[in-house]
Amino acid sequence: MLKLEKKFRSFEGTVEFYSHPSTTTHTTMKFSVFRPPQAASRKVPVLYWLSGLECSEENFMAKAGAQRWAAELGLMIVCPDTSPRGAGVPGETDSWDLGVAASFYVNSTQEPWAKNYRMYDYITKELRTIVEKEFPVVGEMSGISGHSMGGHGALVIALKEAGRYQSASAFSPIVAPSLCPWGEKAFTNYLGANKATWAEYDAHLLVAKSKAKLNLLVDIGTDDKFLVTQLMPEKLEQACAAAQFPLTLNRRTGYDHSYYFVSSFIKEHLEHHARALNRT
Amino acid sequence: MLKLEKKFRSFEGTVEFYSHPSTTTHTTMKFSVFRPPQAASRKVPVLYWLSGLECSEENFMAKAGAQRWAAELGLMIVCPDTSPRGAGVPGETDSWDLGVAASFYVNSTQEPWAKNYRMYDYITKELRTIVEKEFPVVGEMSGISGHSMGGHGALVIALKEAGRYQSASAFSPIVAPSLCPWGEKAFTNYLGANKATWAEYDAHLLVAKSKAKLNLLVDIGTDDKFLVTQLMPEKLEQACAAAQFPLTLNRRTGYDHSYYFVSSFIKEHLEHHARALNRT
Repeated sequence: MLKLEKKFRSFEGTVEFYSHPSTTTHTTMKFSVFRPPQAASRKVPVLYWLSGLECSEENFMAKAGAQRWAAELGLMIVCPDTSPRGAGVPGETDSWDLGVAASFYVNSTQEPWAKNYRMYDYITKELRTIVEKEFPVVGEMSGISGHSMGGHGALVIALKEAGRYQSASAFSPIVAPSLCPWGEKAFTNYLGANKATWAEYDAHLLVAKSKAKLNLLVDIGTDDKFLVTQLMPEKLEQACAAAQFPLTLNRRTGYDHSYYFVSSFIKEHLEHHARALNRT
Repeated sequence: MLKLEKKFRSFEGTVEFYSHPSTTTHTTMKFSVFRPPQAASRKVPVLYWLSGLECSEENFMAKAGAQRWAAELGLMIVCPDTSPRGAGVPGETDSWDLGVAASFYVNSTQEPWAKNYRMYDYITKELRTIVEKEFPVVGEMSGISGHSMGGHGALVIALKEAGRYQSASAFSPIVAPSLCPWGEKAFTNYLGANKATWAEYDAHLLVAKSKAKLNLLVDIGTDDKFLVTQLMPEKLEQACAAAQFPLTLNRRTGYDHSYYFVSSFIKEHLEHHARALNRT
């Protein structure tokens, strides 16, 4: 029941916006797709992009400048919205860092969130099923990336879903949500007070036990105002070093948390994904 | 009295947002700048970008994906806001195609607009003076481009200011404002009922008498919903053919009026400007 809402020609491919009723979140969900020109004649690899706090399915398509490279590399890109919207959960629009546009990509277990805020399952199951059924993609060539809260989501999903994503990267990710204010607030509300359950959604704690065979690529700006209090990239660096998990962490001098940063290095990330996915 | 409002690292250069009191519009005016890495050590050519209806100094910087190429080519980019704001002119915020964000880059002669809506002089005099004083640019290497209403502005300015702009291009420009509903509404309000005065701001009427030595580059999408009623590219094509004025008009199949179109071909436009400006 996929509904095409808008469509734009872009780099000889198309940017497409869809909505559909979700059986996972019990709301209408939205996502955008960049369909590269190569997809007119063959199935192509697909990269899922998870956006950050306050974003929607539109930000990445409008601001990242990814289409030029996805069109060259033959990558489909799929950008889901960052949470359910219109679920009617009390308080879901009161804060910018909880509820609408702030799902943290977990399956909530707590009231009043548990019925709708199931973005982990939405991204890893329902959305993938739709994309693999409705678009010319090779499911075994799936990558995942994201920014900030979405970088957290991408790393967590890649580490947990071993074998289901063949490439992973992140910009400015929250790598230790159990230890930072954004994560503590979100996880307390969505997952409850028992911190043992938080570890299931914390990249720096998942690295040691992950069975995923991936080279993680992470870019972060040295002038990111959230670097020290929320992002803590050194926690991921230490965990990967201890577990001998392959990680390339680029600290980019003078860059911040914005899409001006993401757009500056998106080419390198898409090339990272294309190398892994075209090898699969 | 230039005030730096925001600054972002981008492609080893910087995106900078400024405000200043304008002696031309008698309001605070805003503009953005992309400062390419080359400008750290030498003066560089500068491209002025005029945005379209409803836009501000931000759209192009956020959505066009121009910085990558401007950083490669060593081009400064300057994007002024599309009108005065906060002038307090009665009705200036009532319509999306008149008043705020809809200046049409003319010097208004009519009440209540004449005091503030003087964007032609703002762009060609005050802004240029500020940019050439405060930024490391070579004034004799200035280009101008724009989108839609801004494409109209860019063409008109390039044609009228012979010798002051060494390169010009436009995306989806309004080329015959005297003949289309957007132009008729704006010109009636800003310039009055005497259509003789309109010709001074109508690209397709200026071509024949322009002394400018330029190769105009224009890109337009075949699926642009404003193509027939508002943009009328054939009027420019006919005028240039009649006057033997150099024009390359690309009709891009399937593209529309959006920044998804602009971003798809901005590289070619920046290369067009760099070729002319670096030759100067």
